[in-house]
Amino acid sequence: MRNVAIVGAGMTPFDEHFELGIKDLLPMAYADAVAHVDKGIDKVSIEAAWFGELMTTDGYPAGILADTLDLTGIPVTRVENACATGNDAIRNGTLAIASGLYDVVLVLGADKVRETATNKTFWEWAALTRDNAWDYPLGLVAPANFALHVARYLHESPATREHMAMVAVKNHFHALTNPKAQLRYEITVEKALAAPTVVDPFGLYDCTPQSDGAAAVILAGEDVVDNYTDRPVWIRGVGLGMDRVMHQHKNDMTTFPPTVRAARAAMSMAGIMPRDIHVAEVHDCFTGVELISYEDLGFANRFEAHKLIEAGDTYVGGSIPVNPSGGLKAKGHPPGATGVAQCYELFNQLRGEAENQVDGARWALAHNIGGPTAVSAVTILSNTKG
Amino acid sequence: MRNVAIVGAGMTPFDEHFELGIKDLLPMAYADAVAHVDKGIDKVSIEAAWFGELMTTDGYPAGILADTLDLTGIPVTRVENACATGNDAIRNGTLAIASGLYDVVLVLGADKVRETATNKTFWEWAALTRDNAWDYPLGLVAPANFALHVARYLHESPATREHMAMVAVKNHFHALTNPKAQLRYEITVEKALAAPTVVDPFGLYDCTPQSDGAAAVILAGEDVVDNYTDRPVWIRGVGLGMDRVMHQHKNDMTTFPPTVRAARAAMSMAGIMPRDIHVAEVHDCFTGVELISYEDLGFANRFEAHKLIEAGDTYVGGSIPVNPSGGLKAKGHPPGATGVAQCYELFNQLRGEAENQVDGARWALAHNIGGPTAVSAVTILSNTKG
Repeated sequence: MRNVAIVGAGMTPFDEHFELGIKDLLPMAYADAVAHVDKGIDKVSIEAAWFGELMTTDGYPAGILADTLDLTGIPVTRVENACATGNDAIRNGTLAIASGLYDVVLVLGADKVRETATNKTFWEWAALTRDNAWDYPLGLVAPANFALHVARYLHESPATREHMAMVAVKNHFHALTNPKAQLRYEITVEKALAAPTVVDPFGLYDCTPQSDGAAAVILAGEDVVDNYTDRPVWIRGVGLGMDRVMHQHKNDMTTFPPTVRAARAAMSMAGIMPRDIHVAEVHDCFTGVELISYEDLGFANRFEAHKLIEAGDTYVGGSIPVNPSGGLKAKGHPPGATGVAQCYELFNQLRGEAENQVDGARWALAHNIGGPTAVSAVTILSNTKG
Repeated sequence: MRNVAIVGAGMTPFDEHFELGIKDLLPMAYADAVAHVDKGIDKVSIEAAWFGELMTTDGYPAGILADTLDLTGIPVTRVENACATGNDAIRNGTLAIASGLYDVVLVLGADKVRETATNKTFWEWAALTRDNAWDYPLGLVAPANFALHVARYLHESPATREHMAMVAVKNHFHALTNPKAQLRYEITVEKALAAPTVVDPFGLYDCTPQSDGAAAVILAGEDVVDNYTDRPVWIRGVGLGMDRVMHQHKNDMTTFPPTVRAARAAMSMAGIMPRDIHVAEVHDCFTGVELISYEDLGFANRFEAHKLIEAGDTYVGGSIPVNPSGGLKAKGHPPGATGVAQCYELFNQLRGEAENQVDGARWALAHNIGGPTAVSAVTILSNTKG
């Protein structure tokens, strides 16, 4: 397969951007990505675009991207895959360059969680990411859905609510120095444990905030990369994994098979093992999901995720830093943008320019899990071409 | 680029399937496609899938496809691009095989126009395919939107409402022998002209019906095609074109620039000219759109489309048969399925097995135009590999 690299990446701050629409956020992220192409890039070099938007905020997504960015001369495809939308959009853009049809493509992700085209409420919005025959009418919106998994995980593993709180403390700490993070303040384990319950076993600080934002990456084929930068970040693996949609069909609530499948596919493509990863952005929509994901991604043995967070191994400076950006938990989570923003963070990490730099990072992993825990996307990046 | 072929294609009847859900329609189309793989195909050979669904009917689209078809072991991506969703899903599946990452992929398209996840009405549904700042609140739903274009086209060209009626008569006639078409009855020019007005200049028979349905194609890379059939249909070109979303930004209402862009891209890839096409499925959501598309696709000179329909050239047996399946007009139009169903028809045409067979067809073209006339997808097929 033709090698593909990220040659520029950018993002808006993640926040409650009540004053900004999708048409404001898209050009902000795009301009930031263009500004980070070392040797510059002309708009005419961009041959196609993929747009990850989970919900349609302002109306027809692909057209609004093309129109807003004055890119009506190139094809634009919307990809939607629940909370795995961002990394799946990158996967589709990568395959398109690998095909040889295009040399340079733009991948943009964006969402405004509380505003949608038809003025639906957040709960109606959530309906579009699960099954409407059973799970949604029975109340399995995102927090309840993940809570079922994490409650069982806490029952079967030695992990406790304290370990979940430690994940929140870490990610808030990491976000302190990230100017684009939504929740830039420290918390303590005590504060997390004393917070109001959202849905058992999640307190307020176990949950990602609701966020608005956009993120962009510019991808190029190996034979044109030199035109744009001498420091490309290579996309070494892309994986997407699925699972049953409805919870009565899930055999084991303590693991997410989509993550296992996506990680296996991406690592196999990259020719690496979990222990080769130096830094990861993991889908911590809820703290317990970060713990389960340590195991599903192969960073920890089964039911031993709590040891990693207890030992501080997933802090920057630890053996496998996770969510140096602050993660969904503290950076924020506009679903379509989230995966793309993870790759923005890892692009900076692999170029040695991140706010919370992981020294000497050469391999990085981005991970989303979404919908009714029925999809995961994993992207593996490296500053070496291989 | 690695060559890609369709090795199997299938579809459900298009109709008002009030008794069937998406979970019923998907397996029907999938089973029909599998049944048309000459040498058979094992499910384990399918390595990835792309799902074109414009609106989410039963909830999370990619997951519901994977779950319903028992394909949770492979990646499934939803592509949405307004009424160009079907052919854009095929474009994405084609690029994925061309990349070399997968050898065999499934592309499925489906929609139920009158049922959506949040029980929205058809008009709210339409909001998702245009801009919500201007066009939609001002009433530019699909019929009104296309009516603006066609009204101006009738004003500037010699074409009349009679020519539009002749398109309807042709497509109803073609649908007569298509067992999967929704409106299988003949009409006359007089009947079309006497029908109630939907929106000037469209009478009832100028408009596509609202339809439910699904269609599927199975794609394979050139080096594995022989495992599945000795009569593959090659995807020789894929093109996607965009335009401004809002109508106050459109310079010329009598042409659709997205179609011109998509056709140019697809024909350039195939190395052919419009005159090389032997049969076409054209996006006749409204009869006047078929006329304008004759010109945008290069089948007729500017403002001379009426001559083609007057001369009967676009009937089967004419010089450039258009919509032998009955088209959107009489076969029906479940948006996500429409482009895929066009390729199902052309797959049969190029294998000499269509209901309304175009003798000796070797090159075929499928065309969608969608959203606020802001996107078009064109796929070019041939029974020769080139």
